[in-house]
Amino acid sequence: MRATDRLSLVFAALADPTRREILSRLSRGTATVGEVAVDFVMSAPAISQHLKVLEGAGLITRTARAQWRTLSLQAEPLDEANAWVEEQRRAWNLRLDALDDHLAAKKKSISEDHDSQEAER
Amino acid sequence: MRATDRLSLVFAALADPTRREILSRLSRGTATVGEVAVDFVMSAPAISQHLKVLEGAGLITRTARAQWRTLSLQAEPLDEANAWVEEQRRAWNLRLDALDDHLAAKKKSISEDHDSQEAER
Repeated sequence: MRATDRLSLVFAALADPTRREILSRLSRGTATVGEVAVDFVMSAPAISQHLKVLEGAGLITRTARAQWRTLSLQAEPLDEANAWVEEQRRAWNLRLDALDDHLAAKKKSISEDHDSQEAER
Repeated sequence: MRATDRLSLVFAALADPTRREILSRLSRGTATVGEVAVDFVMSAPAISQHLKVLEGAGLITRTARAQWRTLSLQAEPLDEANAWVEEQRRAWNLRLDALDDHLAAKKKSISEDHDSQEAER
């Protein structure tokens, strides 16, 4: 799978408040499908659909433990999503810094022009 | 608009490689719609649709400058998305730390049991 496709799947999975809530729940500890269903007062097919989307994005895994299926958060795709967002922020901040420098240089040059005009009087 | 709805819009907007590329382009500086269209070799309706989604999520703004419409990145929604992801990571790391402590305590108690058994011999 291309990295961009995985990122798209991760962001699409995060684009739903219920799925984000499920991830929040799992970030505090693993849970069975039944426990998640109880927490969210949701029909079994609805919860199953959300879990499928989260699993497809690699954000959770299911492991069979005795007769229960345990859900765990997978942190790596979250880290990739984070890295992408932070990269844009970094570029944007660099750009704002460059604008600041440009404005400061312009201000300095205007004030120097002014000073030399004052001196010529 | 509820914060969760905005977050959903932001994540949905990020769930497309072309829209992420447009944001990357804009994080390095503002651009006109025409410049973005040239960079992406895309039909005007296609680019317009992507820009609409990004604008709807508050990730970009358009300002009319002379006859050109200039596109700018808006960093705030990106920061909100980042904050959400980081919060989950933090909770997850806390949980892993707690598991580590638990395992370390268990290991210590097993080794102490073993020592006291050795001493009794």
